[in-house]
Amino acid sequence: MEAKIGIGLLGLGTVGSGVASILLNPEGRNPLISNIEIVRVAVRDLKRPRIPSISSNLLTKSPEEVVDDPNVQIVVEVMGGIEPSRTLIMRSIKAGKSVVTANKAVIALHGEEIAAAAKASGVYVLIEAAVGGGIPIIEPLKQSLGGNKINRVSGIINGTTNYILSRMAKEGVPYKEVLEEAQKLGFAEADPAADVDGLDAADKIAILSGLAFGGSISRIDIPVQGIGSLKSRDVEYAAKLGYGVKLLAVAQRFPSTKDANSVPLAVWVQPTLIQNDHPLAGVNGVNNAILIEGDPVGEVMFYGPGAGAGPTASAVVADLLNIAGIHQISNGSNGLDPLLSASSWRACHLVDPTEIVQSNYLRLITEDTPGVIGRIGSLFGNRGVSIQSIVQFDATSQGAEIVVITHAVTKGQMEDSINAIKDLAEVKRIAACMGCL
Amino acid sequence: MEAKIGIGLLGLGTVGSGVASILLNPEGRNPLISNIEIVRVAVRDLKRPRIPSISSNLLTKSPEEVVDDPNVQIVVEVMGGIEPSRTLIMRSIKAGKSVVTANKAVIALHGEEIAAAAKASGVYVLIEAAVGGGIPIIEPLKQSLGGNKINRVSGIINGTTNYILSRMAKEGVPYKEVLEEAQKLGFAEADPAADVDGLDAADKIAILSGLAFGGSISRIDIPVQGIGSLKSRDVEYAAKLGYGVKLLAVAQRFPSTKDANSVPLAVWVQPTLIQNDHPLAGVNGVNNAILIEGDPVGEVMFYGPGAGAGPTASAVVADLLNIAGIHQISNGSNGLDPLLSASSWRACHLVDPTEIVQSNYLRLITEDTPGVIGRIGSLFGNRGVSIQSIVQFDATSQGAEIVVITHAVTKGQMEDSINAIKDLAEVKRIAACMGCL
Repeated sequence: MEAKIGIGLLGLGTVGSGVASILLNPEGRNPLISNIEIVRVAVRDLKRPRIPSISSNLLTKSPEEVVDDPNVQIVVEVMGGIEPSRTLIMRSIKAGKSVVTANKAVIALHGEEIAAAAKASGVYVLIEAAVGGGIPIIEPLKQSLGGNKINRVSGIINGTTNYILSRMAKEGVPYKEVLEEAQKLGFAEADPAADVDGLDAADKIAILSGLAFGGSISRIDIPVQGIGSLKSRDVEYAAKLGYGVKLLAVAQRFPSTKDANSVPLAVWVQPTLIQNDHPLAGVNGVNNAILIEGDPVGEVMFYGPGAGAGPTASAVVADLLNIAGIHQISNGSNGLDPLLSASSWRACHLVDPTEIVQSNYLRLITEDTPGVIGRIGSLFGNRGVSIQSIVQFDATSQGAEIVVITHAVTKGQMEDSINAIKDLAEVKRIAACMGCL
Repeated sequence: MEAKIGIGLLGLGTVGSGVASILLNPEGRNPLISNIEIVRVAVRDLKRPRIPSISSNLLTKSPEEVVDDPNVQIVVEVMGGIEPSRTLIMRSIKAGKSVVTANKAVIALHGEEIAAAAKASGVYVLIEAAVGGGIPIIEPLKQSLGGNKINRVSGIINGTTNYILSRMAKEGVPYKEVLEEAQKLGFAEADPAADVDGLDAADKIAILSGLAFGGSISRIDIPVQGIGSLKSRDVEYAAKLGYGVKLLAVAQRFPSTKDANSVPLAVWVQPTLIQNDHPLAGVNGVNNAILIEGDPVGEVMFYGPGAGAGPTASAVVADLLNIAGIHQISNGSNGLDPLLSASSWRACHLVDPTEIVQSNYLRLITEDTPGVIGRIGSLFGNRGVSIQSIVQFDATSQGAEIVVITHAVTKGQMEDSINAIKDLAEVKRIAACMGCL
């Protein structure tokens, strides 16, 4: 075996401790792990007791000290948050050190800047742990699917919302109640906005999109709808119609039109009805799954635990092993393995969200008068929206509840139709609108 | 970009043509593909018209000529069969050329010899296409899960049998009828033995086991039960009890006992009942899926098309890209990337098949007399086999049909019990015995 590779850990929370536990207990794992050594660790509190037996003289409160340590060859950033993570990642890169990070937010927002710096410095920035927890998805996209033209990436990539939706579906419990329980159990943060508003899923689909299609898109322009306004009855009606409800993130290649130099993509995050026999439908609890459709491979799916210390640590160590493997044959002076470094190779851009095409689920509260279904149907028909089913679920003194599932139409057509339907005298309100797969 | 890498194709059948079509149409795929060039192709019939536009002066009837061509740096073996594939692979290795193959049979049988030769010559032998068709599974096992202690690999890894079982379950059609149709549709070979007898699945689980546990086991000692004797009613009864029936291949680490220098493994292939809510239960048709259980990752699953020209070609090209990527930073003089070459790193051995522990499904034909269920139950109980359910499905003048599902017991206990049950006067015969997950 060659000389050991020195690792500097930024953060020793649950993920950092998970990484340390693997590296300090190599037995039964890939033998290359014995080649990786933790040489410096930045922690917030020097005095907190640590479960993995890390020698206290490796600890420091200064992350800069870890980055600057000449024995640190790879910096593992598992602190989370935008700053100081971004600055520390950039500092590591500029010091000629490869970086492994689990930080999807910083990569989704500053990925281009980080990738450009890494390329200039000839180092790797690997991010397997940033998407899908323990599921190998970043590396397979880079290392196993490169022969394909990818057409679509879709996935359940937020464990917290999937846990909430799974319990709503199974037990009929309202959203708020499940959220509170999830918070108590540690499956949801005290401030759950990033998860339930779909922002975390948007970060992750931005990253997957960049790898699948070869060019980055603007994260902040991705249309995002969270699950906060979802009602138990939507989950219940979906079930009656043969669907489950999942927070789905999608990145899809559009047929090229005007700008042949840039690939048009539709990327979005939305609660979506998924037919019960679809491979993504059976993904429950905190599990994640990512479905990739490519030519010629067809559909492949990657499934597993989307969060948690152990799974995330497994992904971080995967990245470390990839760098350690390459280190044995090249010290970096010959440049980078293009498959592993995976820089952008073409331009991509987001299409106008109104051009996104999909089926839709709509729930309306109307007066219980004859002819209302007919009038709604006509309004859709006039806008070219064909309807797959229209069902009245509930009629009480307060009115009727009508669920419409459309065939695939553009979001623009759908918005036009909704605006027209809102103006119908018999329609009291639009109670829910979701995608449908 | 660097100098192009020359590829020699052994075989231009469906998979070979699929590989050629990817390499000859690089647009929209990983840009590294443009670095890979087909320089020589061995075919059986020089005059057969070819769909991908391969220049006729690249063609030869002599595979040796391809292997020996100095412009060929990587040999792609997509002919299938044990010989002359094995000899050609060895010849390539000895000539210092890396090999990419889709040939599970030759790897399962001669993998150790081939790996030793590759190590000695400092070349890669990559086999992503040998297991799971287009599903990335070999590379993720090597490149993404190395931080884990793998405890179990289980999978549906034969598309033909899964197609047959899926149709039997969906339509209640008998085995023979579905097999004949599958043969007409090209989903089953004219001689289906390798598939329906479980031999192909055994080849593949032997390969996965070697990668997951770090050492090879004896392929011919793997206990294999095929689906040939399976009856529609077993599939039907399983469904009534909440299970699907799949041909499952399993490789599982046993608690280490005597020989601490070698890891004990239980490896087997058997038709198995899988609970409807299990991730593997929804895998239908020619799709495959492999579930990996590791510490600390937990359960991850890889799903996709288990066969077909396009998916298999995608996997072959994945291997080519991995070698091409590494070529850019190392010409091989520094040795191999240990992660990608993945040589054995410890000894493994198979435990005695009677030690395999699992739940079982048993169908008995008995006389329809009172007390028979009690007597069967007692015989199991006396041998320490606890029963999860015992159900009488059908009573006619010919007798009764009794289905027993046991809790997890050793195969030895199960065999003892079956022998004792056979001797009961009321028991006419054991009609079926399968695993149960």
